[in-house]
Order: sequence, then C-alpha cells, then structure tokens
Amino acid sequence: MTFTVSEQTDADWPEVWRVLEPAFRAGESYPLPLNVSEEDAKLYWIKRDGLNAVARDQSGAVVGVYYLRPDQGGPGSHICNAGYVIAESARGKGYAVELCKQSQDQARAMGFRGMKFNLVVSNNTAAVTAWKRAGMDILGTVPGAFRHPVDGFVDAYIMYRALEAAE
Amino acid sequence: MTFTVSEQTDADWPEVWRVLEPAFRAGESYPLPLNVSEEDAKLYWIKRDGLNAVARDQSGAVVGVYYLRPDQGGPGSHICNAGYVIAESARGKGYAVELCKQSQDQARAMGFRGMKFNLVVSNNTAAVTAWKRAGMDILGTVPGAFRHPVDGFVDAYIMYRALEAAE
Repeated sequence: MTFTVSEQTDADWPEVWRVLEPAFRAGESYPLPLNVSEEDAKLYWIKRDGLNAVARDQSGAVVGVYYLRPDQGGPGSHICNAGYVIAESARGKGYAVELCKQSQDQARAMGFRGMKFNLVVSNNTAAVTAWKRAGMDILGTVPGAFRHPVDGFVDAYIMYRALEAAE
Repeated sequence: MTFTVSEQTDADWPEVWRVLEPAFRAGESYPLPLNVSEEDAKLYWIKRDGLNAVARDQSGAVVGVYYLRPDQGGPGSHICNAGYVIAESARGKGYAVELCKQSQDQARAMGFRGMKFNLVVSNNTAAVTAWKRAGMDILGTVPGAFRHPVDGFVDAYIMYRALEAAE
C-alpha cells in the first residue's frame, strides 16, 4: 500500500466531500445529523485551529481524509483529537491503520503529547480494530452515547495513546 | 443554603464575568489561556446551542454559574456536557454540589439521557469531590491532559452519570 498525504487545499474540497458524504449520511460513526448540508459538513470538517489532510493512492484517487487539532484549549492544548474517513472504494485494505499512524507522526511533529478520540462508536468494529492496531487504547466507555440508525443507543469508546517525543 | 437559578441574560454578563475571571486567570480548572480576553471568555462561556444559568443567594449576589449543552451533535446529542464556576466568596459552602444537581434536573427536563464532563483536573480535589457527591462517576483518566500552573502535567478525569427520565 502506497499513499501520499498532503494538507487539504480549497481545491480538494469536492473530492473530500465525495468521501465524507456517504459516511456522514450513513450516520454510523460521526455525531452529525444524517441530513447535514454540505456547507455545515464543511464547517464541521475543516479545522481552522488544526489541520486537514488528504491521502491519495498512486493513481491520485483520494483514499482517505483526516483532521487533527487540539482536543482542548490553553492548558489542555497539548493533547490532539483526530477524525478519519476512508473512501468507500478503499476500505478493507488497511488504510485506516496506516493513515492513523501517519497522523500520529504528524501530531508528534506538531508537538502534541497524546492523541484522543472522543466518540468511537462501539459497534463500528472496523474502526475500533484499526485504532487499536494504531496503538490507541480504550480509556473509557460512555454508555449509550451514540444513537445508531439500526442498533439504537450504543456505547461509545474514548480512545487514547500517548505520543512519545518526535526523534 | 437557599439559591435561585435563572437563565443568564445579557444584563448578567458583568456579574458573571466577575465570577469567571478569577477562575480562568488561576488556570487550574478550565482549558483556556490564562490571559484570555473578556471577549474570548464570553465566546467560550455562552453556549448558543445550550443554556447558561446564574445562581443567586437570597441577597441577590451571584454564587455560581453554569453552562449546559449537548456534548456532541446529531446521534450524540442526547448526552449533555456542563461546566460550573462558583464565586470565590461562595466556595466551601456546598454550592457546587447543589448547582450540579440542579443542572441535572434541568438536563433531564431538556431530555438529556446522561451528563458528561470532559476535563476534570485531577488535583482539583474540591471539584472532584463535589461532582462525586452529585452522582458523577469517573469514567476514565486522561494521563497528563492538563498543564497546571504549579503542578505541571496532571491527569484529567472524564466523569459521567446517567440521567434517569424526568418524572
């Protein structure tokens, strides 16, 4: 698997939205209304206080996207939060694990000391497995924190890993 | 202890800020820069997607303030997040416990199914004790998540309680 990651530009948005939209409409992973408008999705996804990245395979197709930003402000700003979406056509190939690891390298380079996910839907097995493979541990479980369109109220995990200093 | 809680109005802001400012400047509890401007503090504190409340004692003095809002959007919006600041002159009298309980009643009435705190600084013993008395449990510990001005990197707790349905 070879992919290149670059910072998202304005010109990337249409391709990014084609990756995000089916994930957001499915309503199984992100805390957004299923009918979120493209405009609101853009406001949610693009993190002015952090960075957005786009991963492309050798053909130039977008295989995944992520955001990375401080989880909290001021005295809490050394821990980052991140979110990922893998393109439907690129799933099941290990991109989530690799993209998460790449974002951890990026986070280390930016000086973050830890990475925290606030809402990993517990029945999203592919995601939970990928993040564990990328070194994230379950730090706590919020009971029934996510209203799944099929399964109703399901637990959500808070996941965390410390980021050793960049070499 | 008798206090009345009302929704914060524009006219309340100067009194609210007099309660918030010393807490924010101390930098021991909220993830804001210690030198946060009044304008930025107001943007942080006033939650347009939730509510802000002011508690006054029988003399009309503000004893504490809180915000309450959805912790996440869409399929995560049934869990609320809240933050409290007790006026310096009113501390040590049990107001934090009572205000937290009152906010839980408020949250139930608004239909929330749980209450979650994302960053309870672990060495803030008064706060941790108060929230436990108000039924909040530690759900997880984020290692070194808060840079304390005296103690350096200290752990932060994520605290949670389920809110039974309003009667």
